[in-house]
Amino acid sequence: MDVGIAVPEDRIFQFVAAALKACGSAHEQAEAVAKALVSTSLRGVDSHGIRLLPHYLRALAGGRIKSSPALSVKRTAAGAAIVDADNGFGHYAGYRAIAEGCALADEVGIAGISVINSSHFGAAGCYVLEAANAGFLAFAFSNSDPFVLAHDGQAPFHGTNPIAFGAPVTGQRPFLLDMATSIVPWNRIRDYELKGLPVPEDVGVDAHGQMTTDPAAIAALLPFGGTRFGFKGAGLAAVMEVLSAALTGMGHCTRLLPMSGPDMSTPRRLGQFYIVINPDRFVPRPLYEAGIAAYLTDLRASPAKPGEKVMAPGDREWACRETRSADGILVAPPLHEEFMQIAHELGLDAALIAPT
Amino acid sequence: MDVGIAVPEDRIFQFVAAALKACGSAHEQAEAVAKALVSTSLRGVDSHGIRLLPHYLRALAGGRIKSSPALSVKRTAAGAAIVDADNGFGHYAGYRAIAEGCALADEVGIAGISVINSSHFGAAGCYVLEAANAGFLAFAFSNSDPFVLAHDGQAPFHGTNPIAFGAPVTGQRPFLLDMATSIVPWNRIRDYELKGLPVPEDVGVDAHGQMTTDPAAIAALLPFGGTRFGFKGAGLAAVMEVLSAALTGMGHCTRLLPMSGPDMSTPRRLGQFYIVINPDRFVPRPLYEAGIAAYLTDLRASPAKPGEKVMAPGDREWACRETRSADGILVAPPLHEEFMQIAHELGLDAALIAPT
Repeated sequence: MDVGIAVPEDRIFQFVAAALKACGSAHEQAEAVAKALVSTSLRGVDSHGIRLLPHYLRALAGGRIKSSPALSVKRTAAGAAIVDADNGFGHYAGYRAIAEGCALADEVGIAGISVINSSHFGAAGCYVLEAANAGFLAFAFSNSDPFVLAHDGQAPFHGTNPIAFGAPVTGQRPFLLDMATSIVPWNRIRDYELKGLPVPEDVGVDAHGQMTTDPAAIAALLPFGGTRFGFKGAGLAAVMEVLSAALTGMGHCTRLLPMSGPDMSTPRRLGQFYIVINPDRFVPRPLYEAGIAAYLTDLRASPAKPGEKVMAPGDREWACRETRSADGILVAPPLHEEFMQIAHELGLDAALIAPT
Repeated sequence: MDVGIAVPEDRIFQFVAAALKACGSAHEQAEAVAKALVSTSLRGVDSHGIRLLPHYLRALAGGRIKSSPALSVKRTAAGAAIVDADNGFGHYAGYRAIAEGCALADEVGIAGISVINSSHFGAAGCYVLEAANAGFLAFAFSNSDPFVLAHDGQAPFHGTNPIAFGAPVTGQRPFLLDMATSIVPWNRIRDYELKGLPVPEDVGVDAHGQMTTDPAAIAALLPFGGTRFGFKGAGLAAVMEVLSAALTGMGHCTRLLPMSGPDMSTPRRLGQFYIVINPDRFVPRPLYEAGIAAYLTDLRASPAKPGEKVMAPGDREWACRETRSADGILVAPPLHEEFMQIAHELGLDAALIAPT
């Protein structure tokens, strides 16, 4: 998304929250979604940012997502808790799970938090960042409906099943890895289509399981690693299924309702799983701080290919955040039109999404 | 390794343990190494199996690995412990860490165990399997000395930094993912060289950072994902560094002594990190059992490319284990010669490694 209408983050935040509330969403649910979407767009992850607002409004309107869920937190052991999202927004449940995880890990050294009866939670990175900003290391795991071949498979099986990891770095933005276990995000294919470009080789297959470079024909993605090494990407996707589905009692990939509908009224009952680690229970804090700083310094100083620079996980995102915090978030013209339509229909102040 | 001398697993186990003890290793250390190496060879992971015995004997003889270390376990919180391997074998420390992790997770729901002052621990999968066999889910993380480019890098930076995950499956062998975050294992390159074959494109670079298919010229591997998508593989390798080095206070990749020497007397002080999860604190056991079984059934039934079969993580390894348990472990002729030499030098019974 290189062109678009630049809108300041605080106004987009207000717009997203206002739109959700106008569709009936409880205040704290709407604020959590707005926080997740806007912070994700700020980091440049457009596939999982404000682009998702119209989808969430449809899910609210259809009743798939409850507007005022009764989320509950049950501690089942000193280091374990189950958050029941009551079919509300996965973002709110994710932030609650991480807060609970930090509280438990502070005492116990590590915590595992499952989320049940959840929904799509946007970018997995949002939640590990909360932990990192509070001084903890964290993993976030989720699954989704089928878009990705199994290794040696011919039909969509796994979701794009993300894995995210965050860690605090004193005096710097956190270490942040947030990756799909598919070879590219699904949205990247739409990007090629929009630009009239062929998709690279070994990325996607058509409805018959045959490799294709035609973006319009692509029906499923390869797992990360492609034809030759996809057993690793598919293996990681499988780990996400075990943690998000088997360990939570929720459905796995092929048994989930499609995110895109047409059924927008039945809750999808997704599962997510979080691990939060308190470094102070494993190593003196100054040693941790010096260790991660030395590692990142060495990584960034590693000799690069001509014209390139070796970056640490998160560096690209934090650079984007600097730019977009200063210049506003670029809203692609078709999305901006959709936002204007939403403003009109819900009676929201269109000035919120006017250019800077 | 398709040709070799078939030797029964129990005799190889006795041979490995006897060789280590003849070089001074304490009984429980030697037995742990033998268990790790033989079980790994049984699963077909030849790069991390009995092939490593001569290396470990050199490390023992040189003093890098202590023959009778005073391993200690310190619980630092209800769900956290630090295992100090006292520069003994990483395998023994790994098994102790997992046992401690299972004990803590049983009560607390989840446990994090760091291992400090450790050494090479063989295949990461060995330890998560212990947990899975005891009914727990587990992760194992480690780092190693530089063999792999950073993404966009031109010089070796990360180790092949493995990630392993295991989970119990009632009535079946455990779910097992054990993968390097490099595009292939380092040993695979030696395999191409031995067979006089070129290495595939986009797998390795020479000493000047230039892509090459000449196995003899390869000085570093690409991260998993290759040129286009290596940011994901390198990102995973980075997570392993944070957990194995920063979180343990041990050294990161470029600050570790090379595994291959020439210094075989200075301890390498590696770090490892384990997470153990008790599923019973998150979901009723029957629901977990039904969930993972249903997922694996659906995965294995997923439509495959002609002539292929979709496999679950571990299926290939367990099939190999069946064959090798019945027919013996195939010892490659050069390795078998090395074993005969070891038997001769240490005065061991050569009948232990005679063919079936």
